[in-house]
Formats: sequence, C-alpha cells, structure tokens
Amino acid sequence: MSEPVPAEESVVPRPGLSRRGLLGLLGAGAGGLVVGGLGGAAIGAAVATANAADATGVVHPFFGTHQAGIATPVQANLHFAAFDMADDATRDDLISLLKDWSYAASRMTQGLDVSATGAVGGSPDAPPDDTGEALGLPASALTITFGLGPDLFEKNGVDRFGIAARRPDALKLLPRFVGDALDPAASGGELCVQACADDPQVAVHAIRNLSRIAFGRAQIRWSKLGFGRTSKTSSDQLTPRNLFGYKDGTANILGDDERALDEQVWAAGPSWLAGGSYLVVRTIRQKIEPWDRQQLTEQDRIIGRSKGEGAPLSGGTEFTEPDFAKKDAAGQPAIDMHAHVRLAHPDFNHGIRLLRRGYNFVDGNDPLGSLNAGLFFLSYQSDPQRFVTIQRALRSDLLNEYIQHTGSAVFAIPPGAKQGSYVGAGLFA
Amino acid sequence: MSEPVPAEESVVPRPGLSRRGLLGLLGAGAGGLVVGGLGGAAIGAAVATANAADATGVVHPFFGTHQAGIATPVQANLHFAAFDMADDATRDDLISLLKDWSYAASRMTQGLDVSATGAVGGSPDAPPDDTGEALGLPASALTITFGLGPDLFEKNGVDRFGIAARRPDALKLLPRFVGDALDPAASGGELCVQACADDPQVAVHAIRNLSRIAFGRAQIRWSKLGFGRTSKTSSDQLTPRNLFGYKDGTANILGDDERALDEQVWAAGPSWLAGGSYLVVRTIRQKIEPWDRQQLTEQDRIIGRSKGEGAPLSGGTEFTEPDFAKKDAAGQPAIDMHAHVRLAHPDFNHGIRLLRRGYNFVDGNDPLGSLNAGLFFLSYQSDPQRFVTIQRALRSDLLNEYIQHTGSAVFAIPPGAKQGSYVGAGLFA
Ligand code: HEM
Ligand code: HEM
Repeated sequence: MSEPVPAEESVVPRPGLSRRGLLGLLGAGAGGLVVGGLGGAAIGAAVATANAADATGVVHPFFGTHQAGIATPVQANLHFAAFDMADDATRDDLISLLKDWSYAASRMTQGLDVSATGAVGGSPDAPPDDTGEALGLPASALTITFGLGPDLFEKNGVDRFGIAARRPDALKLLPRFVGDALDPAASGGELCVQACADDPQVAVHAIRNLSRIAFGRAQIRWSKLGFGRTSKTSSDQLTPRNLFGYKDGTANILGDDERALDEQVWAAGPSWLAGGSYLVVRTIRQKIEPWDRQQLTEQDRIIGRSKGEGAPLSGGTEFTEPDFAKKDAAGQPAIDMHAHVRLAHPDFNHGIRLLRRGYNFVDGNDPLGSLNAGLFFLSYQSDPQRFVTIQRALRSDLLNEYIQHTGSAVFAIPPGAKQGSYVGAGLFA
Repeated sequence: MSEPVPAEESVVPRPGLSRRGLLGLLGAGAGGLVVGGLGGAAIGAAVATANAADATGVVHPFFGTHQAGIATPVQANLHFAAFDMADDATRDDLISLLKDWSYAASRMTQGLDVSATGAVGGSPDAPPDDTGEALGLPASALTITFGLGPDLFEKNGVDRFGIAARRPDALKLLPRFVGDALDPAASGGELCVQACADDPQVAVHAIRNLSRIAFGRAQIRWSKLGFGRTSKTSSDQLTPRNLFGYKDGTANILGDDERALDEQVWAAGPSWLAGGSYLVVRTIRQKIEPWDRQQLTEQDRIIGRSKGEGAPLSGGTEFTEPDFAKKDAAGQPAIDMHAHVRLAHPDFNHGIRLLRRGYNFVDGNDPLGSLNAGLFFLSYQSDPQRFVTIQRALRSDLLNEYIQHTGSAVFAIPPGAKQGSYVGAGLFA
C-alpha cells in the first residue's frame, strides 16, 4: 500500500479555523508515516481488513499525474456532491479546505480512516474524527475526484478568492439546450466531489466525511447516489446496461487508450490545469414507462444498436464499427439518420469523443407511481465545448421523446496532486 | 438450478386483463420447463452468465415453506416498494396479480428474464416483456418477498376483494408512537415487495418489472432504495455498521436458529398465514450532524456498546452477553439505564426478539446541506405487537434525540408458495 500521508509542509495548521481545519495536522503530527488509522487495541480485526488490498479491496493511489476516478476502471457505485463555499469564506479557507480534503481523500482511498485517530482512536472525550460506518470495510476501489466550478472563480462579478484572473475561458456555464428543464437547486456548484467505490457504504462514507470536514467553510448544494455504472473505461469490464436496457459504454474511451486520452480528455492548459480535465454533469430523467411500451424494433431504431447484443444495426457484433452508409432491404439507412449513436458519433462531430462515466439512479417515485429513474450522465473531456457540440448534435435525437435533462453542472478537474501536495495547489502558486 | 416455472394450472390466462396479465401464460405456453429466457441467437454470452450460479451469483429458490428474504442471508442492496390496488380493481385482478408476480419472481430470482421471451426473445414488433437492464447479470442472491397490508383486507369499511373476514386481528395499523413524524405519502400500502440482491441493478430491475406487471391493477405508493445492510442473519456474515458508525445486527436472530425463528418470527396462524410472518417497516431519519458532534463516550453510552468492537459496555467482546447489573468505577450502571440496547433487550421485554433486516439510506440532502440519511428499519416478527412492545420500551431511549421516525407500514407476509402455486394462494382457497 502506498504511503498516504502528505509531507508536513502541505498540512501546516491554520489557526483560527474550526477544529476540522486541523484534521491535516492530526495525521502529520504523528510523524509522517501513519499506517493504522485506528487507535483502539480491541479492534485488531477491523485494522486487518481495512488495510488489506484483498479480493474486494482494489486500492487506487491518490497521488499521481491525473486524479483517479477518470481513466481508472469505473466502479459499481457513486456518491456525488456539489458544494458551495460559505458566504464569508476566505481564500485561506478555500486553500485549507482543499488541503484537508486531499489529506482525507489520500487516506480514505487507501482504506484508512479519515485521520490517524480515526473513528475510535482519539480522545474518548472528543467527537471522533471519522464517522465510523466504513470501519472494517476494504478500500473497495474508492476514488475521490475534486472539481472547481465557474462560480468559485467569480460570482456576481466578485473575485472572492483572488482567482478570477486564473479562470480558464473554457470554464463557464453551459448554454441552454433545447428541451432543458433544469432545476437550479440540483444544478451548478462551486466545488464538486465524485466518490466512486465498489461498495456504496464506502462512497457514502467518503462524501459524508468530506462534507463534515468542510463544515463552516463549504456546504453541500446538491448530491446524488448512483448505481450500476452505465459505462466502462476498461476492456476487462463487461459493458453495463442503462435503464432503457441497452449496453452503454461500448464506444467509450478506455482508460488505457493513452492517445485518445491525450487528444480528447486531458486539458492542455492553463498551466494549473494541465493534465486535468473538464467534467460535465447532466441529470437525465428517463421516462421508463413510455419507453417500455415501445416495440423492440422501435427501441433499437432509436438507439441505433440492438438490445441483446448491442451491435450496430448495420450489422456485426458489439464492437463492429457502425456503417452509417449501409441500407436495409427497403433502401432506408440501416441506422436511422436520427438514431442516438449516429448523431453522437465522432464521424459527424469533428472526431470528438467523450469519456463517459455515468450511473443509473432511482430516486423514489412520483405521485402517479412512476419510478423517478434516469441516467446521471458524467463526461470528461479536454474542453466542455466538446460536450456542447455533441449535445447540440443530439437536438433531433429520437431518444429525446423519452428523456429530459433536469440538472446540469460543469467543473474544471485539476490534475492529480503530487505526493505531499493537494489537488488544486497549482491555482494558488 | 431449480425449475422456476409454476405448473400450468396456476397460470391460466385471464381474458380481459391487460397484456401484462398474460405474462404467466407466456412462460407456461412454452411447455413447462423454460430455462433460457433469452430468445436471440446472438446473445449467447448473456445467457451463459445469467443462468450460471457463479461466484457473484448465489441463487435462492423461490418456492418453499417460507418466503425467501426473511431468514436467508441479508444481501447488500434493497429496493422496496409499497403498492396500492387500482380503485376499480377486482378480486380477480388481485389474484391474477399475485399469480403473475409469483411467476415473474420465480424467474427473476433464478437469474432469468421476467418471462420466457424476456427482453429480446419476443416478437420484434411488440414491446419486450422484460425491460432488459439486468440482461447478462447473475441472480446476485435476489430474493423477492411479498406482503399484504391491512387496507387490502378492508378500506374505509369496504371489503373490495372479499377477504375482510380473513384479516388476522394482528394485522392493523400500528399505534402512534411518541415522537412519530410520519409522512402519509411514505407510509402504509396495500401490498409490498421487498427486493434484496447483492447488485442494486438486479433489485431495481425486479421492482421495476413487477411494477410494470401490475400496470392497471396496482401502482407504487412509495418506494425506497437501501444499501449497506444494517443487519445480519447469518453467522458467516460480518456485522455491518449503521450510519451512526456502530455495528448493527450483533444480537439479531440468525437464519439458522430454527428455535428462535419458530418462537419469534414465524406466524402460527390463521391457516393461510401459518409459516409466514409480519413485517414492520419504519423509515427512520438519522440526524447525522448532531450525532457526529457527540464525544465518543457519549455515543457509546447512548448505544450501550463500544463503537470499535461493538462490545457491551459491561465488558467483553462483540458477542459477550451484556451484564446490565454491572457497575462502573463510579458505582453507576456500566450500561446506562436508557441505553438503546438495554431498553431493546429481551430481558426487559418479556423475552421478545425481532429479526431485523434494515438498510441504510441516503436520499440527497436538505436545503441546508445535511445529507437526508437514515435507517430503513425492517423487522420480521410473529406478531406486530412484538414490535410495538419494543418500540414503546424505546420511549426513553437516549437515541431519540438523534433520530426521527418519518414512515411506517405493516404487512402480513404469507408463507412461501408451493412449487406451481403462488404467494397468497391460501387467502383465496
Ligand atoms: C438517458 C440518456 C442517454 C442514453 C439512454 C444513452 C444511451 C446510449 C447508448 C445505448 C449508446 C450506445 C453504446 C455506447 O457506445 O455506449 C450511447 C452512445 C453514446 N452516447 Fe449516449 N445516451 C444518453 C445520453 C447521452 C448524452 C447526453 C450524450 C452527450 C451529449 C451522449 C453521448 C454518447 C456518445 C458520444 C456515444 C458514443 C457514440 C459512438 O461513438 O458510437 N449520450 N448512448
Ligand atoms: C436509527 C435507529 C436505530 C439505530 C441506529 C439502532 C442501532 C442499534 C445498535 C447499534 C444495536 C446494537 C447491536 C445489535 O445487537 O444489533 C441495536 C440493537 C437492537 N435494536 Fe436498534 N437501532 C435503531 C432502531 C431500532 C428500532 C426502531 C428498534 C425496534 C423497535 C430496534 C431494536 C433493536 C433490538 C431488538 C436490538 C437488540 C437488542 C439486544 O437483544 O441486545 N432498534 N440497535
């Protein structure tokens, strides 16, 4: 297991902040290498499990060139939260928050408690640093990915954190698209945290503890749980299915396709963002009942692929390239001119591809008994304008009758933190 | 794999019902033994996976003495839905719905599509029988457990389905408890379906398809997703943790404890219910932020057990019996008189134990940024009055400052269906 604790200089305590602001110190104060994270003598079993990268416990390094959670294999579960800074938060608050978050993330992704004293190792007369619900659970491939929204740089013309001049031109609100029915309370956000893990309890634990660490500096604006990844980023993964029953992720950019990642996903600049990316988030409600009443051929026509195999309607198997020129027996295009995969295909979009990393969601039901279900669409690209190009191309998508975009957000995703530093450090250099 | 298709007589088509009402026929029409459930030749891989009880694919029999999903090992994920019958539904509708549901459940729990033609094997000019999002996924230990609420038997004094006389006295609305803040829209229900699986996509697929089958006869009243089981019913399972960070399920009734099941869980009668049980459902919001601000000793005192090990505060390890007479150094009871585990303990409740089978939930956040988190409490007992006794004993529970009950429901859980019959058949005999 890699050494999770940042070097001392990155976690200097910032007097005047809440106790939570000192979290970083708790770890570094122990002298650098902290492997246990659990103080109680009686909980040996939990320590053994939490620290072992066992069969269910894939561990992703936190520090590196890129943040984990983009090109790394998509996990089974998601908890996503968008945050807004407190009204009176200062530049120092923002910096200390990013440091504390990186510190906590560098530990939790390794299967450790949020700090060295953790859930039960601190003073019995103090609230525990860690909320404890992941005690004994393996890392479960947890990745924690941080992003910065446009409003963080400048809001209502005010440069609250002295970073307005560093906002990349590309980072701005997405334009309004035809058919958008966006809920402002479930859109936007000044910061975001994407926590993905193979165990939902581990993802929830991460968001909850990061939210707690943010107390007084930032608070959750909106949040979402997702399951059944609707994409894949590794050729080892079976293609999952979305809630319309179709394989999703077939033509996705894979995490080991360095060339596609360099051309399509990693941002070139500005310097503080080089090696980072942009995340576009769209909450898309799927109208499953009307969809379910469509005949199979119609469903296939709308997507442009077959339901069972996921093959393009021009023929072949799942990974055969679609042949958009191919005609069917009646002389019509085998793949409809307005099929989803045709309109979204790079051939008709200047070669643009997105790295999709979405999840299914079901949030209860509406008063008529329909499940409130849909796709929590997440895509990473080197410029949000690439998403805009595809989304505009989907204007005449046959799918539009069955979906509705209800939430939207965009974030700059800084590159990975160097060992001993924190995500976003370059912005303040 | 056991043979999932009920004998022909139980699935006679009922003319005049919606197409969904004929689902049963689709399976039996194929001549009894249907093992594939997937018609397309191109989807061999999906068939191979769906039908294999592989490492991740534990398969529970649907037919048997008791319904699965009570004493069987608790799975990782839950989708629960309460249904109400349509205003104009008849007795025949209710019977055909229970038959169709049993038929579909007998297939889905085996890793099969909802009918023999399934997601892609029917006529391409018809809507598929199965919505498809679980195509290729293993059974994932799916259990589907059906229940009948008090209002099904008689509502506003009307005996809609001719079963009022068969309502057990024990099946009635729970009394109001001190502190209840119940949302009627998230309480009650004439029918319920508890779908548990080790893959959330499989549980969601089950509820969605059962809801679809119910179309025109019943519709979802309220529903809930849960994760991170907060209980255990097998000694093989590690004790999970709830969102207060404590081990939950330590003293639970285990699924192989035949004696405790017979004494505490299985209902003796009336005859149509013998071998069944009663399910009490309580949605309990946990106020995680105030909880997280409590010191560790105070949290331990409230629960009556230690956070790390889960041992009673009277000493020992997780499975040591609590000693409520034990005093601490200051001469006070080592386990507080109002600690949760003391008040809930059988010693002070006429020996009553519950089989708990709850799940954690997180449903987004409130406008102040707090996660809307809690415990979806499910308990099975031979009489709901047993739950009432414990819940009343919890009136002075120290935990009450940190929780609020927001939903409530009670259901009679019929015994398991005999091979070739359906759940609830005894009610109409
Ligand atoms: C609920 C909404 C959506 C559903 C159900 C859906 C479904 C699908 C399916 C089944 C495929 C084919 C398999 C694959 O290659 O992944 C696909 C491909 C694709 N989708 Fe979507 N999609 C949705 C929304 C979007 C949105 C909002 C975008 C971007 C604006 C998008 C962009 C793409 C792209 C780029 C491809 C790959 C096309 C190719 O290269 O062949 N999708 N989608
Ligand atoms: C959010 C609310 C609740 C929380 C956080 C909670 C937590 C716990 C914990 C940590 C334990 C000790 C470990 C164990 O034996 O499982 C426990 C035990 C128990 N709880 Fe709860 N509980 C809650 C609500 C309830 C409710 C509503 C009831 C029933 C009315 C209940 C009944 C019991 C019982 C019967 C035991 C076992 C007592 C024994 O035999 O030692 N709990 N609970």
